[in-house]
Amino acid sequence: MKFRVKDLDLATGGPHIAALHKKDARHIDSRSGDRIIVKYGKKEVTCILDIAESKRELAPGSIGLFEEVLDKLKVKNGSIVELKFTGKPESVNHIREKLFGKQLCYEQLFRIADDITNDRLTEIEKTYFVSACFAHGLSIREIVDLTKALVLTGDKLKFGKLTLDKHCIGGIPGNRTTMVVIPIIAAAGFIIPKTSSRAITSPAGTADTMECLAKVELPPQKIKKIVKKNGACIVHGGSMNLAPADDKIIEVEHPLSIDAEGQLLASVLAKKYSVSADHVLIDIPMVKSSKAKNWKEANHLKERFELIGKKLGMNVKVIVTDGSRPIGRGIGPLFEAEDVMSVLRNDSHAPQDLRKKALFMAGVLLEMTGKYKKGEGEKAAIQILNSGKAWVKMNNIIDAQGRQKKPPRGKFTFCMNSNKTGKIIAVDNDIVAKIARIAGCPQDKGAGLILHKNVGDLVKKGELLYTVYAYNQFKLNLAKELICLNCGYGVEKS
Amino acid sequence: MKFRVKDLDLATGGPHIAALHKKDARHIDSRSGDRIIVKYGKKEVTCILDIAESKRELAPGSIGLFEEVLDKLKVKNGSIVELKFTGKPESVNHIREKLFGKQLCYEQLFRIADDITNDRLTEIEKTYFVSACFAHGLSIREIVDLTKALVLTGDKLKFGKLTLDKHCIGGIPGNRTTMVVIPIIAAAGFIIPKTSSRAITSPAGTADTMECLAKVELPPQKIKKIVKKNGACIVHGGSMNLAPADDKIIEVEHPLSIDAEGQLLASVLAKKYSVSADHVLIDIPMVKSSKAKNWKEANHLKERFELIGKKLGMNVKVIVTDGSRPIGRGIGPLFEAEDVMSVLRNDSHAPQDLRKKALFMAGVLLEMTGKYKKGEGEKAAIQILNSGKAWVKMNNIIDAQGRQKKPPRGKFTFCMNSNKTGKIIAVDNDIVAKIARIAGCPQDKGAGLILHKNVGDLVKKGELLYTVYAYNQFKLNLAKELICLNCGYGVEKS
Repeated sequence: MKFRVKDLDLATGGPHIAALHKKDARHIDSRSGDRIIVKYGKKEVTCILDIAESKRELAPGSIGLFEEVLDKLKVKNGSIVELKFTGKPESVNHIREKLFGKQLCYEQLFRIADDITNDRLTEIEKTYFVSACFAHGLSIREIVDLTKALVLTGDKLKFGKLTLDKHCIGGIPGNRTTMVVIPIIAAAGFIIPKTSSRAITSPAGTADTMECLAKVELPPQKIKKIVKKNGACIVHGGSMNLAPADDKIIEVEHPLSIDAEGQLLASVLAKKYSVSADHVLIDIPMVKSSKAKNWKEANHLKERFELIGKKLGMNVKVIVTDGSRPIGRGIGPLFEAEDVMSVLRNDSHAPQDLRKKALFMAGVLLEMTGKYKKGEGEKAAIQILNSGKAWVKMNNIIDAQGRQKKPPRGKFTFCMNSNKTGKIIAVDNDIVAKIARIAGCPQDKGAGLILHKNVGDLVKKGELLYTVYAYNQFKLNLAKELICLNCGYGVEKS
Repeated sequence: MKFRVKDLDLATGGPHIAALHKKDARHIDSRSGDRIIVKYGKKEVTCILDIAESKRELAPGSIGLFEEVLDKLKVKNGSIVELKFTGKPESVNHIREKLFGKQLCYEQLFRIADDITNDRLTEIEKTYFVSACFAHGLSIREIVDLTKALVLTGDKLKFGKLTLDKHCIGGIPGNRTTMVVIPIIAAAGFIIPKTSSRAITSPAGTADTMECLAKVELPPQKIKKIVKKNGACIVHGGSMNLAPADDKIIEVEHPLSIDAEGQLLASVLAKKYSVSADHVLIDIPMVKSSKAKNWKEANHLKERFELIGKKLGMNVKVIVTDGSRPIGRGIGPLFEAEDVMSVLRNDSHAPQDLRKKALFMAGVLLEMTGKYKKGEGEKAAIQILNSGKAWVKMNNIIDAQGRQKKPPRGKFTFCMNSNKTGKIIAVDNDIVAKIARIAGCPQDKGAGLILHKNVGDLVKKGELLYTVYAYNQFKLNLAKELICLNCGYGVEKS
């Protein structure tokens, strides 16, 4: 069957979509979501079928193509293409089996990951996969196999022996240890190619924060060169083809804030496995409203991470940390970057909680390599930081990635003062994160909060608790409205 | 925030979609699937946000609107609209709870059904609902509540006391009992407003078959008038607003051929409850590859249907019938309509299996009303059919709905002859249905099969088993290709 191409002037950002008028679709007995092959010359693209309801959108006899399909086929408006039928991908059957509660084998999980990577599944089909895994759970064996499948349907990099990595589950505002740990580890002579994410629901991801200092969107070849030369990088993982199916799975988890344990384990470990890390440190902040509410839950996750890591041939160590309060002083990309740099620079006013946590983590990682005796790791980390070697290394990394001009601080500010004298007994992470986001984070890099007090500090009536920064009065006012409802601080009268 | 409207010249056929350029979306901290309110003058529409990736599709500062939104707001290309934020519907939280295995109450199920009816949920969110119900199951109480919710988020009709209905689960080719039972019941003086579906995966639905004789897409007001005058109708349910959420749920079940028991029960009973039926007869053909593979499964479904019907205040009776062979001679809309009319006309050559099954069912329905003693129902049905009253009633219904010119028989034919002498021991329903579909059903109304032999018949070598009809040689050839692989008939040599 031949159809005339209509350039729909629309992109999906993923799936290959072709649309037919409903009359044509009925004539060829096809429904929305069916797969068709669109052929032009020798090129073929398998598309998901969409149905146009009215003639205004698409005339019968025409086939509407999205940008992704036009590009792949190199066709233009008005070209004649051929249409062939094809069944649904085999992986749809595997998803169906999982929904019925069956365990999937490696080959089946690989087919699913491969079809997700190559945009062969519809959103509905992907959602069925996520919810089936969520409702029925994944066995240890399935998680190991899913992790391998996620990695092997993308690129697997190999940097050399003693490649290290770290990861933190869940967002604690200001918890920017990565940017302190990486230069320490690299200065100690190990390889640590760090790929980070952008903020989804938090005020700043490591990639957003690093972007205040250096470029983070780099081509894979350049990243490899940077790591080869400097032992490390701090880049946005999205620009590399590491476990690409994982990112697409996360997209369908987002609408329901689903965070299935099996998928979390596979997701985190896939990123580590795809850079061939030998030693991986994972930080699980224990905090209400997370997957690690208490010691029991945190330890359960810890055991799983370490066991599955082992089965993948990685030395994984999990530390459970205090997730109940912000770390550092700044919240928002610029302010968090400033915290990091002040720690690396050994400034006397640098936030000591961030310094302490990062040194502890660097110490654990160094000891994991076997090159440091128990108890010697942290000492070595302190020595590297104090000597200025970590500062130099960070600047090398920044220069290698491409130094950026620091974004300006928000000019519109609001000072939140204590309404009583006493001791600060709580800072609500969720609330301060929300204030920062409403003030413009992560989009407005110089927006956010600077905390002048944290849990345990004494405060006098009228003394400053924190300052809010925004790029315009509108966003500042929105933040103030939220603060009126809940300022995020609990002060106990003394 | 104000945006300039771009008419995207696209319709979704359902959900209200508005698109922003990714820059604008990032600026206002919104993601694909978020809800926004688009305001024009005093009109407001809540839309699901879509993100455009390139400037070619949508310039920053513009908002791309789909037809449904343009129509509701009555805006045109270039108009300026205002944008406001709004949260996700409350029902998304209920769906999330179900995914975690919780039982939902009536109010929660009502919210979900209401949001599905009004296109407030994304495909991903609807899919999570279906898969959560599938994976965790629905309790009897939940099924009753879901049925009520599906009905009360649409129109509930009331025709009067002694309103009857019937339904058949799953498609047995040629099983067109409905069109025989309805005129018999109506001729007996009862009300039976039958809404039917079109074929999704079978060669013909009752609506497709009836459409060979009369109009089936009628406005609700006209249908009410027809039922009031004739006691019955046989129309396409899609044109009425009966349990509209159910149809939208079925749309997301289709891609994975999911058919959860709870949803099946709610779906069937919702259509009956929405026409306020007092007595409902349900036919469950027992057949491999269905939800009623054996007596155990069939009886389980029977018990559920009858129990839930009772809780909804309906007298529901289930009969389990033989689903292993086609019923009647014709397969395809026209041929099935011809079978029905020959039974109603009392033709000597009318298919006796269809006549017998329809009379049995009509008898059961008549006895359910309490107006006929046990054993008297079928006798009354036979009397009505033999007297010609059912034939007259059917013609009244056809005239009331609008008599249609019969579609032509397919001119391209293929005769399938037996390659041996013996007894027919099996006819594969799935295969003959597939041959009919490939030959053009249900789109080509006069395409399909006429079966000259059925299970139990004797056949001589070279004798005709069935004839295939198609509207063109291309489709006939496709059907022949399938027949070469499997003709659908099993003959045991004698």
